[in-house]
Amino acid sequence: MVAGEEKQMEKIAEGIYKITYQKPEPFTPVSMRKSEMADGALERLGKGRKDGAAALPFEETEIQFEQTARGITVTLPMKTDEDIYGFGLQLLSLNAAGRKRYVKVNSDPRMDTGESHAPAPFYVSTAGYGLLVDTYRYATFYMGTNTEKGTSAGKREVNIPHREFSESALYAFKRAKEERKVIIEIPAAGGIDLYFFAGDVKEAVMRYNLFSGGGCLPPMWGLGMWYRVYGGSDENHVKKLAKGFREDKMPVDVIGIEPGWHSHSYSCTYEWGYLFPNHQEMVDTLNQEGYHVNLWEHIFVYPAAPFYEKLLDYSGDYEVWNGLVPDFATEEARNIFAGWHEEQFIQNGIAGFKLDECDNSDFNPSNWSFPDSTKFPSGMDGEQMHNAVGVLYQELIFNAFKNRGIRTLSSVRSSGALAAPLPFVLYSDLYGHREFIRGMVTASFSGMLWAPEVRDCASGEDLLRRVETIVFSPQALLNCWRIPNPPWEQVCIEKNLQNEAMEERAFYMDACRKLFELRMSLLPYLYSAFVEYHELGIPPVRAMAIEDPEDYEARGIDDQYFFGRDLLVCPLTLEDGDSREVYLPAGLWYGFFDGQPYEGGRRLSVQAKEEVIPVFVRDGAIVPMAEPVLCVREDTVFEMTIRSYGRKEGAYTLYEDDFTSFQYENEGMREVEIRRGGDGKIEIAGGENSLRYRFKGKTEFIG
Amino acid sequence: MVAGEEKQMEKIAEGIYKITYQKPEPFTPVSMRKSEMADGALERLGKGRKDGAAALPFEETEIQFEQTARGITVTLPMKTDEDIYGFGLQLLSLNAAGRKRYVKVNSDPRMDTGESHAPAPFYVSTAGYGLLVDTYRYATFYMGTNTEKGTSAGKREVNIPHREFSESALYAFKRAKEERKVIIEIPAAGGIDLYFFAGDVKEAVMRYNLFSGGGCLPPMWGLGMWYRVYGGSDENHVKKLAKGFREDKMPVDVIGIEPGWHSHSYSCTYEWGYLFPNHQEMVDTLNQEGYHVNLWEHIFVYPAAPFYEKLLDYSGDYEVWNGLVPDFATEEARNIFAGWHEEQFIQNGIAGFKLDECDNSDFNPSNWSFPDSTKFPSGMDGEQMHNAVGVLYQELIFNAFKNRGIRTLSSVRSSGALAAPLPFVLYSDLYGHREFIRGMVTASFSGMLWAPEVRDCASGEDLLRRVETIVFSPQALLNCWRIPNPPWEQVCIEKNLQNEAMEERAFYMDACRKLFELRMSLLPYLYSAFVEYHELGIPPVRAMAIEDPEDYEARGIDDQYFFGRDLLVCPLTLEDGDSREVYLPAGLWYGFFDGQPYEGGRRLSVQAKEEVIPVFVRDGAIVPMAEPVLCVREDTVFEMTIRSYGRKEGAYTLYEDDFTSFQYENEGMREVEIRRGGDGKIEIAGGENSLRYRFKGKTEFIG
Repeated sequence: MVAGEEKQMEKIAEGIYKITYQKPEPFTPVSMRKSEMADGALERLGKGRKDGAAALPFEETEIQFEQTARGITVTLPMKTDEDIYGFGLQLLSLNAAGRKRYVKVNSDPRMDTGESHAPAPFYVSTAGYGLLVDTYRYATFYMGTNTEKGTSAGKREVNIPHREFSESALYAFKRAKEERKVIIEIPAAGGIDLYFFAGDVKEAVMRYNLFSGGGCLPPMWGLGMWYRVYGGSDENHVKKLAKGFREDKMPVDVIGIEPGWHSHSYSCTYEWGYLFPNHQEMVDTLNQEGYHVNLWEHIFVYPAAPFYEKLLDYSGDYEVWNGLVPDFATEEARNIFAGWHEEQFIQNGIAGFKLDECDNSDFNPSNWSFPDSTKFPSGMDGEQMHNAVGVLYQELIFNAFKNRGIRTLSSVRSSGALAAPLPFVLYSDLYGHREFIRGMVTASFSGMLWAPEVRDCASGEDLLRRVETIVFSPQALLNCWRIPNPPWEQVCIEKNLQNEAMEERAFYMDACRKLFELRMSLLPYLYSAFVEYHELGIPPVRAMAIEDPEDYEARGIDDQYFFGRDLLVCPLTLEDGDSREVYLPAGLWYGFFDGQPYEGGRRLSVQAKEEVIPVFVRDGAIVPMAEPVLCVREDTVFEMTIRSYGRKEGAYTLYEDDFTSFQYENEGMREVEIRRGGDGKIEIAGGENSLRYRFKGKTEFIG
Repeated sequence: MVAGEEKQMEKIAEGIYKITYQKPEPFTPVSMRKSEMADGALERLGKGRKDGAAALPFEETEIQFEQTARGITVTLPMKTDEDIYGFGLQLLSLNAAGRKRYVKVNSDPRMDTGESHAPAPFYVSTAGYGLLVDTYRYATFYMGTNTEKGTSAGKREVNIPHREFSESALYAFKRAKEERKVIIEIPAAGGIDLYFFAGDVKEAVMRYNLFSGGGCLPPMWGLGMWYRVYGGSDENHVKKLAKGFREDKMPVDVIGIEPGWHSHSYSCTYEWGYLFPNHQEMVDTLNQEGYHVNLWEHIFVYPAAPFYEKLLDYSGDYEVWNGLVPDFATEEARNIFAGWHEEQFIQNGIAGFKLDECDNSDFNPSNWSFPDSTKFPSGMDGEQMHNAVGVLYQELIFNAFKNRGIRTLSSVRSSGALAAPLPFVLYSDLYGHREFIRGMVTASFSGMLWAPEVRDCASGEDLLRRVETIVFSPQALLNCWRIPNPPWEQVCIEKNLQNEAMEERAFYMDACRKLFELRMSLLPYLYSAFVEYHELGIPPVRAMAIEDPEDYEARGIDDQYFFGRDLLVCPLTLEDGDSREVYLPAGLWYGFFDGQPYEGGRRLSVQAKEEVIPVFVRDGAIVPMAEPVLCVREDTVFEMTIRSYGRKEGAYTLYEDDFTSFQYENEGMREVEIRRGGDGKIEIAGGENSLRYRFKGKTEFIG
């Protein structure tokens, strides 16, 4: 810090500290957020490992600030062995230690720069803290990439011939052995607020999520199966598909309709076009059949859109795809946009939206989105808007639903800081299966949910491997916009377009159905995980480094993750074949399907046929399983079976409400507590009064 | 422009105009350059198509400036049909119209963002102007990506079903049909100088090169064959290779030695290590055998380097690979660094350097280079230094040679604005053959030279295709750092490491030899092209859009190019097989090798066996060809044969001097003018007095 500059550390909640340097910008994630900090939960979580400023692993004076021509530079100490997680959704790597992270919204980066659909200026360190840099600027974080001048003075090594002259050695990713610095650059800003979250990785993540307002709570149907239909569909095709799912007993909760429903998309009119002449009848029919309907859109408003004129004054000064870029930082634009959605769609039975193309496009061969220099009427510029718009867009759609008292789970392609309370799942169809899996792991550090969607499949086996992953993910989404028939009929796009079925159709349909049913069985279990995300800030799907920050062996793992409280999921990809290595933390584990016991604290190789995904259950776990339904309706009652793993005392709480409204905010959740005593006997407290869960004493004991 | 702000257009040379907005930064390409503008040549080139401000295709008032929190925003008009070239070396696309270009030095971008080893804030437009934005900042250029708000009002199109919902349609690169803007953002700056270059694409490029100081003039040997040896080489291995080339009659002029010569590289000591105990004897022997020796290095100074202590005060505040980052904007650092090179290497027979790793590394999986926030003693910051260091490094090495009166042609991995006078060729081994070819085309707009080096080859055929390309390139470089034996012995890296020769060794060695000899035959012709680069600013290897800016058909072509005045080169890659499409501009053309005539103004398919590259010669051309030598020595005299294509009157000028020193700056060049009259007779004016070219009346008439 330059001598004489003012900065001050302030405690704003238990375990959360804020430092302000000079005069921060008016548009930042914290200053613009609509959700309130979950004070009560933060209070209950406690003070962090130590109290006061000492809760951070360095002294306040070690946090240094500087104002330069380029903006603000912040430096922090960083130890050699620190691992760093976060920065939002990251598809290409997990641990940011030794790396640069460039916090810029950008679709489909192919290189590991930190850019993503949903980056966040937030990270957690294994040194025992989290840090939110409260900015929408394209901040750069140097996470110990460099040593300070003079650190290496005195070194006198000599080349090791040959070995040091191989390409792999020259360009290997290296972490310095010396003490380093975290260097954070916030361009253009004249001041900055930093928010520190005390605690180990798990606590810091929980605090960050509670500071954001707590995790989102989706409606129960949102946890069911999702199917996005063929892009070229008309209403008859959609109805035919929907009918087919029911006839084939394929559980599907949500039907997503792609751009073709608009009279003009790219940019959008937000009005039904001629492919859907009787759209309301279609929506009503789908709703009666128990489907929830999700509509694709983006923010760019085509001149033929009915509210184009009204938005003119509340839009940026450049067009995208001939459309306006609404300024969602103005109340007017929010009201015009949200109002239209509420009146035209939400009150007519539309259950959610897919908010597409709100990420920027430096890497995509296309050339969309607005310049960073764009001026918005609110006073925001294009740079800020790029990093903000994903969250602003989610908030306004969320609030349009909330106005009607209806919960949604929707889809969005961009997000940012403080997004945990927003019931949106991130997606993009431009990744491989391995990256889809990594995304779930990395997103979990920053209050984000990621859908490892089933998209183009190379084979029936590939289809099953991908379905297995979505079953154990925040959103079980099949994205079939390129194929008119379901993928279990035909995975090959060309043949699918010709309505030509696969020979093994029956096998794959059956295998998919079983996996979909498995998802439906897990709904009550998963709902509990979301309630705990909402109330405690624990991510429902999360990295192993969150589950046990002290387990060094688990820290770097980005291809297995926890699903709900007790399931450890280790997906296989087509490339893996039928076996992979897994790491089981210390303790006893059971195979979720076969009940086979495994001693943990080690790596082992596991095998699984194409229709089976390796999932392990913690000793002592209670996993409530439901009879699968085809979809979750208003009046669905889940017929429960209790799976009891091991013999230790244990408990699991199911939560119930109407599963669709905000009534729980006033009335709270009803709880059903399933308990296994030391005697191995199962008791279900509240079970007999439950309206949505029915217990007939079915219990399976494993181990 | 904000009302009341001052700006003024000033004519600084014929056809070159400068506009200053507010107070520009102290560190910029123009303010730091060491070369002087080539006033005389600019004067001779004339005034541009029109005089005064009207030489630009828009009014001065249409150039708008704004200061924002983010820096300076400049906007210019852009017409729908404008094509845009430049921005330095671009591997991934040619025409920037409709694209964003982010001018940031970055090694190996895999996506088309504008970043490259050698970006430049300079472009030329087919509207008839060039523009240099005088900044080292990471400027962003939006080349007509967006329309202004309201441009599209009134549009009432509707979706075309199916067709518009294919992935290719959704993400196709689209250019707006409406009038657009060029938007330029210069971050952090409080003012900016713009330099406009009037004229069509060719004239604007020439003016830019002459403004830069004129093109570089390499020594004749630099135009010969280059061979970079195995990274694991010791001095005996180098000598053995060199002996082998002579025994096998393989022309090689330059031997490049890779990092292993340093006692420590990554970072560097700039001292010979134990793999080269008798290095001076090796260098002397190589020199006696007619080789020029080039040494690999980078800027990062290891603590064991002899001048480490001296540099401490003149280095940035962070280390890279444990080494200092010298501040080449300080005279002290330049003198320490250049002085060492002069005393230790240049005066001991080293002919050039390979300046590696001076590009930044956001995309490489490794994590080198210094933070953008790095502070340098000169006052530059890391952002500026990243965009400047390639040129600063070239300048200091160039001047170390110049101090000794010796010319060099060297290699460098990064460059930037105003680099034309610097005798360095850009390289990187991380591209495919197609990108290597495109790089020659794109670099030619911005005063840069690019080596489409031969690196890893998939097969013997691939080797020949790549060698064919380097023969017709600015620098005929084989980069063999991964293989101990020449690639014509064995292309497979693993087998090469085992000293296992290919079965077809004799064929490929012979085919390579013939291609190398072809390069050596072209040396006098190519030297003339470089003299004209130096004196007129015409790139020796250049895009078709430079050759004839009015030829619309040729504008977008990035896989064929002009080599010297009259050769049109259309390389084949392994992927092409033995045929490709070429475009011949209007007029008559001849096959360079077979003399077959072709009517131009059309596209046609050509075939060529693996050892033949399609090259076309303009009707009327005179191409002087030399008897190939194994290398260019101090006293080499070229035995010339005149190839005369067609029957029109024509002329070609050969230039001669000592080919190695700066004497020509005082004494000028001697000229030999070869002329063909209307009667088809060849006259050689000055041929009999020539010291370096011998003419024995050998002439080949084609057509």
